[in-house]
Amino acid sequence: MNFEFSNRISGVKASAIREILKMMNDPEIISFGGGNPASETFPVEQLKRISDDIFNTCPNSILEYGITEGDGSFKKAAIEFLSRHETVVKDYDGVMVTSGSQQIMDFLSKCLCNEGDLVVCENPSFLGALNAFKSNGAKLVGIDMEDDGINLEQLEAVLSGVQKPKFIYLIPNFQNPTGITTSLEKRQAIYTLAKKYQVLILEDNPYGDLRFRNDAIPSIKSLDDEGLVVYAASFSKIIAPGMRVAVMIGHQDLLAKCTVAKQTNDVHTNAWAQSVMARFLNETDMEVHLKKLQAVYEQKCNLMLEEMKKQFSPDCKWTIPDGGMFIWVTLPERIDMPEFVKRAVEHKVAVVPGNAFYDDDNKPCQSFRMNFSTPTNEQIIKGVAILGALMHD
Amino acid sequence: MNFEFSNRISGVKASAIREILKMMNDPEIISFGGGNPASETFPVEQLKRISDDIFNTCPNSILEYGITEGDGSFKKAAIEFLSRHETVVKDYDGVMVTSGSQQIMDFLSKCLCNEGDLVVCENPSFLGALNAFKSNGAKLVGIDMEDDGINLEQLEAVLSGVQKPKFIYLIPNFQNPTGITTSLEKRQAIYTLAKKYQVLILEDNPYGDLRFRNDAIPSIKSLDDEGLVVYAASFSKIIAPGMRVAVMIGHQDLLAKCTVAKQTNDVHTNAWAQSVMARFLNETDMEVHLKKLQAVYEQKCNLMLEEMKKQFSPDCKWTIPDGGMFIWVTLPERIDMPEFVKRAVEHKVAVVPGNAFYDDDNKPCQSFRMNFSTPTNEQIIKGVAILGALMHD
Repeated sequence: MNFEFSNRISGVKASAIREILKMMNDPEIISFGGGNPASETFPVEQLKRISDDIFNTCPNSILEYGITEGDGSFKKAAIEFLSRHETVVKDYDGVMVTSGSQQIMDFLSKCLCNEGDLVVCENPSFLGALNAFKSNGAKLVGIDMEDDGINLEQLEAVLSGVQKPKFIYLIPNFQNPTGITTSLEKRQAIYTLAKKYQVLILEDNPYGDLRFRNDAIPSIKSLDDEGLVVYAASFSKIIAPGMRVAVMIGHQDLLAKCTVAKQTNDVHTNAWAQSVMARFLNETDMEVHLKKLQAVYEQKCNLMLEEMKKQFSPDCKWTIPDGGMFIWVTLPERIDMPEFVKRAVEHKVAVVPGNAFYDDDNKPCQSFRMNFSTPTNEQIIKGVAILGALMHD
Repeated sequence: MNFEFSNRISGVKASAIREILKMMNDPEIISFGGGNPASETFPVEQLKRISDDIFNTCPNSILEYGITEGDGSFKKAAIEFLSRHETVVKDYDGVMVTSGSQQIMDFLSKCLCNEGDLVVCENPSFLGALNAFKSNGAKLVGIDMEDDGINLEQLEAVLSGVQKPKFIYLIPNFQNPTGITTSLEKRQAIYTLAKKYQVLILEDNPYGDLRFRNDAIPSIKSLDDEGLVVYAASFSKIIAPGMRVAVMIGHQDLLAKCTVAKQTNDVHTNAWAQSVMARFLNETDMEVHLKKLQAVYEQKCNLMLEEMKKQFSPDCKWTIPDGGMFIWVTLPERIDMPEFVKRAVEHKVAVVPGNAFYDDDNKPCQSFRMNFSTPTNEQIIKGVAILGALMHD
């Protein structure tokens, strides 16, 4: 049997990162390649106690079918948590629980994009989102990243073009893969442009609560007053990713269509995960919980940065993130990046080649992504030393 | 903001059934409308004990990211369970865990269908599947159901047409919504036609283990020797639907593409659900467990059939299922079906109007679907009496 695949899925390759994740099972590999949260931050005891209590008091609530939009108690708790510093749920908004925020990328592009429609993204950006957009027929238009967010001239050139993009995909806080935070000025300017050209924004904020330096910056969603911004809030990085729970917030007309997409995909998100998270949010002093996480990420990030300063070649550059999980390293021209990454793996250190994150992964690229949340301190010290030695070879 | 939706999602309406499910929250309504398994069959104590034990011994295995294809231990346990009577996993097959079998409908049609491509379905068929196919651009071609499965002449006419369909969607056991079981002869004939015209079959088997009458019939998948059949096995009806776990089995080349679709959708299925189910399958005498379920379903089905015989008008017809959860009732021409269903709801009994299950829901239809797994015995007796009275009005 010779299978003929649809046009929209044909061009999407298996994620380079998830292939690297499989390699992580090699216990000898020091992986800076993944994007896993630090497992020592998982609130195991609390989740266990809550789960047990739910089984004792209302087991059917987690075992029977639920509704597509999500468990009411979880939605309420999540909205309260997400609204504690700013208004991300507007009067005109709908809210839907999804099985991880990856589903938000898939459902939004499925509902909005015909084949050949444009989606604007940061260049580089999160590979999983780019693949979701492509798998729904979208054509990616990457906008260069600068130290404070995307280049505004390039953005306006695209928005004012003949073919109006369907939406702009942004990760304003400690972006994946660069670790860059978009400044308030740029968030405002981007929103103004989106409004001027009436193009939607998908604001992805998986890392916002993992800030360990400098002050929080308002989300673009909080600036919105006409339903232009869809907001993706993940609980993977602040509770646990294996539970696969996120929340999609956006104009109710748009959310109604995305609810149909979810109905035809997984009907509803795992009911146990929603119930346990609802209770966790309600019973936990989240500020204390987040401070603990932030301290872990800060320590790991700073250790990695210090070691890089000691070990990496001085003609190598890297970002200094205010939070999140990633550092973006750019090699000098004298070093061939793909060759460097290959040699690193041979020396048992995994990083992700930067070209994987671009709208066109065949473009020449001198950068790679390093993750600091997953490795131990010992692995950070040893792995950075190995990478540093390879730069000096 | 005026949202412009993609062509493929525009025509898909919110599921009529899921709207009815919301109505079920009205405690006065007797619902024969849903498709929920009987909650008294959920193995609560076992699931609780296993869940607790996993939290105690290996919490990170359920809290950290997993791999897209699914948890190895669950896949192994599931394959062993599904293979106990027949060979559904062939040498050339791949296996992927999905978040409910609804995802299999979505991923397969996403990977195979361009806009306007044909998908053949039983007429009537499972609404969630039909919507998933439509949401990926497929055009449905319904084949009339007969007492022993679809009409073969109609099927061959479609398969031999100018536009070759991408696949044939079938629920051979106790079909949703009709309760009809496709005979072995028809399964063989359908497979022979699929082979002759080289068209894939998606065999959906959510209810197979809920057989309480007559002997099991081999799956079409077990007859396949060249990778033409994709098999959807759900654990929603035999363990618990809120956990959202199913298994997709099909040719490895096809599964590799569907893995990409899942990667860009929810990355992987909830890890807790997979781990708990793996242990449940390994530790449980599944034949004993299934016998218990079958006895519950048999009792409820027989009670409903007996009450219908007593209460329904003699010019009314219905199917007698060998298992599953549904009975398909056809009203005489003198009764207007949509009007009847509306009056039933006014009298606090919910059933699903049959037209919802057709490739074209505007076609005139005299049938409705009744579910016997969710209501209590008292509700069955009372609800059937109310419906009966309405027939005699």
